[in-house]
Amino acid sequence: MKIVVSARSLQEAKADCDVVELRLDLFDRLPAISEVEAISKEKIVTVRRKDEGGLFEGSEEERLELMRKYATVANYVDVECDAHDDFFDMPCKIIESYHNFSETPPFETLRDMIEGRRGDIFKIATLGRDKRDVLTIVRILCEYDNVVAFLMGEKFAYTRILAVMLGSPFIYCHAGNAVAPGQLEAGKARKILEMLL
Amino acid sequence: MKIVVSARSLQEAKADCDVVELRLDLFDRLPAISEVEAISKEKIVTVRRKDEGGLFEGSEEERLELMRKYATVANYVDVECDAHDDFFDMPCKIIESYHNFSETPPFETLRDMIEGRRGDIFKIATLGRDKRDVLTIVRILCEYDNVVAFLMGEKFAYTRILAVMLGSPFIYCHAGNAVAPGQLEAGKARKILEMLL
Repeated sequence: MKIVVSARSLQEAKADCDVVELRLDLFDRLPAISEVEAISKEKIVTVRRKDEGGLFEGSEEERLELMRKYATVANYVDVECDAHDDFFDMPCKIIESYHNFSETPPFETLRDMIEGRRGDIFKIATLGRDKRDVLTIVRILCEYDNVVAFLMGEKFAYTRILAVMLGSPFIYCHAGNAVAPGQLEAGKARKILEMLL
Repeated sequence: MKIVVSARSLQEAKADCDVVELRLDLFDRLPAISEVEAISKEKIVTVRRKDEGGLFEGSEEERLELMRKYATVANYVDVECDAHDDFFDMPCKIIESYHNFSETPPFETLRDMIEGRRGDIFKIATLGRDKRDVLTIVRILCEYDNVVAFLMGEKFAYTRILAVMLGSPFIYCHAGNAVAPGQLEAGKARKILEMLL
């Protein structure tokens, strides 16, 4: 299990974590390739569109070009599950991601997404509303490997820990300011996991 | 949510917890009723038979008499789900419990037990073997209220925390020496829950 922290700048990329997710769409200025190469931990490159909660406003062609460029010095790129096949042709591993900020779809919908996956790791982050959503996520985690699945929302922060206990390879945390509802601070997540493992 | 600590003596009953479970079968000498009454927190009275992991060797009639006597100064008695109906006639609330030290039965078996419950709270503690058992317990917790359900085993300690997050009224902890595999120390459990809630 690796602790991932999202970074909106090279400064934030210095956070104490195992993997840094470079949210290039949130950077004020794009880093030089050599600057990314110099980050001495595993790196995920992510460029989120506006409709996926990000700030990238260019075309899909521009986004693909940007991701391919940084993928050469990254361990993973994060590609949304509705992206064109071209996005899955990368020189590094791929985290295929599904985000839903309004609900958690039924188990069958999520299962079909995973069965048809094009990436190496499948990430599911959906809004939690009640215990049925917890059950849905637990079913997914129990039936599939190489899946990161958790519920967004303050009340459901524990599902991020639960996912690790059920085998998720990553836990997404923050290093200061939460970038998603329910996200745990990296040090706190590490402490909780140490107490449970 | 209340933190329960099992006590094998009046000394251990002083542990920092919300509820103390008096394991009368493990006491060297039985406490006086007045001594139990003097314990200034909620109390569960439990007398486990040998085949349920306890040390009580008397008859069921003797066990019933003992439990009825202490029930007058307790908030709860813990009654095994296979006990005679007489055990469910108590002057306090009842935690009906099911323990299985060799496996976790299928969801349907546990569901039938809960549907037919005679107590106020149903407690399920079963040996965890793999992720399917986690799913079974989560289904139970998502579908029923007033249920405490977790998996025994070091690897499954987190299911005790998970049960609280899914609404279990109690978490069973130890104050020094674990009395069940995977049981968390009370202070540690409190810390984890504070960080998640």
